[in-house]
Amino acid sequence: MSKKNPLLEVFKQTDYQVIGHSNRDVHVLKNVLDDYGGHQESDIYGSGKIIEDFQEKMASYLGKEAAVFYPSGTMAQQIALRMWCDKKGIQKVAYHPLAHIEIHEENVLRELHHIKSVLLANENRLITLEDVVSMEEDVACLLLELPQREIGGQLPAYKTLEEISIYCRGKGIKLHLDGARLYEILPYYQKSAAEICSLFDTVYVSLYKGIGGIAGAILAGDKTFMQESKVWKRRLGGDLISLYPYIISANYYFDKRVHKMEQYYEDSKELAVLFNECHTISTVPLEPVSNMFHVHINEEKENIVRILIEIYKETGIGLTGNLKDIHEGCYFEVSIGDNYASIPKGELKKVFKLLNQRILEIAVG
Amino acid sequence: MSKKNPLLEVFKQTDYQVIGHSNRDVHVLKNVLDDYGGHQESDIYGSGKIIEDFQEKMASYLGKEAAVFYPSGTMAQQIALRMWCDKKGIQKVAYHPLAHIEIHEENVLRELHHIKSVLLANENRLITLEDVVSMEEDVACLLLELPQREIGGQLPAYKTLEEISIYCRGKGIKLHLDGARLYEILPYYQKSAAEICSLFDTVYVSLYKGIGGIAGAILAGDKTFMQESKVWKRRLGGDLISLYPYIISANYYFDKRVHKMEQYYEDSKELAVLFNECHTISTVPLEPVSNMFHVHINEEKENIVRILIEIYKETGIGLTGNLKDIHEGCYFEVSIGDNYASIPKGELKKVFKLLNQRILEIAVG
Repeated sequence: MSKKNPLLEVFKQTDYQVIGHSNRDVHVLKNVLDDYGGHQESDIYGSGKIIEDFQEKMASYLGKEAAVFYPSGTMAQQIALRMWCDKKGIQKVAYHPLAHIEIHEENVLRELHHIKSVLLANENRLITLEDVVSMEEDVACLLLELPQREIGGQLPAYKTLEEISIYCRGKGIKLHLDGARLYEILPYYQKSAAEICSLFDTVYVSLYKGIGGIAGAILAGDKTFMQESKVWKRRLGGDLISLYPYIISANYYFDKRVHKMEQYYEDSKELAVLFNECHTISTVPLEPVSNMFHVHINEEKENIVRILIEIYKETGIGLTGNLKDIHEGCYFEVSIGDNYASIPKGELKKVFKLLNQRILEIAVG
Repeated sequence: MSKKNPLLEVFKQTDYQVIGHSNRDVHVLKNVLDDYGGHQESDIYGSGKIIEDFQEKMASYLGKEAAVFYPSGTMAQQIALRMWCDKKGIQKVAYHPLAHIEIHEENVLRELHHIKSVLLANENRLITLEDVVSMEEDVACLLLELPQREIGGQLPAYKTLEEISIYCRGKGIKLHLDGARLYEILPYYQKSAAEICSLFDTVYVSLYKGIGGIAGAILAGDKTFMQESKVWKRRLGGDLISLYPYIISANYYFDKRVHKMEQYYEDSKELAVLFNECHTISTVPLEPVSNMFHVHINEEKENIVRILIEIYKETGIGLTGNLKDIHEGCYFEVSIGDNYASIPKGELKKVFKLLNQRILEIAVG
């Protein structure tokens, strides 16, 4: 795969990378096990101290009665939506057209659950209270993705969230949070995870995105709902005899990084300024509201790939390995983790100086 | 959980256990990583050397064009059956009433895939060619579980397998192998895995049962089928960003144990003789055909639990941690792995002498 992407190849060989935590290699697991006793018994089909303790910890963090560990968010979320549909007797859910479940999960709701999706808002903006209120179809559940990743990780005002929550409760519409990146939005809202989750009936959080575990997800909600969800977990093949490699790494990196989200957020705003100072480059959002944003470059992708490869080689600093074509130019996603803090600031400024120069050279042709 | 099962508690504290490979604790993972380079890159959503190499190795071992790694057999098998049903346009599959998918997977075929199950044979015997030929309903696929675990791991004659395979091919019925314990039956049949798999269109094997990995499954078949199965893998939430903790442990224990199946089979036959020499005890099958069998004891469960706990404490050797009630007495499953070979034979004979004595004492009142 990566052979077809020369930018990624060069990016991987840089000394410093502005995004992410560290290489996704086996060290991520080895680090966890180095200070872990080997005699700890495995979880067995969802039972045992190793899984139950972590589930309780996450339920408490999210302010929910119960939490269940799932191998993936894709599995966790479809189960929540399916269950809400079955409970309400309405096979419809609403969400944003760029929700993860709409564009990255092979139409699972339709193909596997016969659930119809009602799309709210559009590809350029967030869901508003007005979108929800004016929805013509009856739905069992509304899913909100915070932040809305595919538009640069934008967030609604907290007041809007509260209003949507109140409206949905009044109408009997269940509210589900795709909180894959929930930890990352707490600094912007200046709220605890539990405060945000209290607006929602069920919540999913990722265990590898912001905190950098190996894989895995938590679904949280009330006790009865979560207990019932285990039947679906078994059906879908997620009730593995042992999930502990994911659980112990999730726990390790959660403890290591959950308190660093404020730093990632500050770093993200700082980095966005550097991008926005470059010719034809702008970030979405202009000022990030989490550790992530998108970088749009109004220039042909092939030119930018060439420039970036040159700069990576000259400076040893990599900005991204994945540049995507869009109708006007190209873009890439930035997600800040531990790596950013280790980059010498002077070197980083040099990268942006070069980037601006080289783009200007193209522009003046 | 285990607090409610005093037999299991005492069993866990024995010095030697006749079943299994080793404790299911974190050592199983640590052992793998101790001699593993940390710089190996993670698989990413089903791509990368770490997953592709293992899939190729397993495809070759099973004699199929392609293999895909799944988090669980439950996920792998429902995908194979769903795909065969969709391809044939028939939403029916046939299998044994005690098949894993029928009794341990929460009606996944009906609840999730709207597939009807046609049950062949009965709870006391294997599926025969006659059962298949006389089946009145059109089915897309026939699933055979080899060995048939819930009746002690029985196996049909190899000739019967061949006849069923030929019949199904003639009738356009796809044949799927639940080969969770495929490695374990090769010594009895004196065939390679590839020879047995050649009778089937698709094959699932477990990566933790016989070989003692942490979790995971392989589904194998022709190239196009396996490629398409990845869409379903993503839908069901099995396309994790990283599956390597399971893959590297599967690979490690596969290499360590796949050649030991002949030994486990011989041990299993030896142990079954010891059980069958005891009063009111008989194994099913009487002579095992793999590393597993069931032990039936025509005596009340509570009495046997008491006797076993005494014997475990006296000898430091444990036979089982799980005794199940049945209409006539009780039974447990035996599955031989590495543990058996380490037990001093004289001590083991003492266990059976005690067991026979104590059961006789109950019998004579």
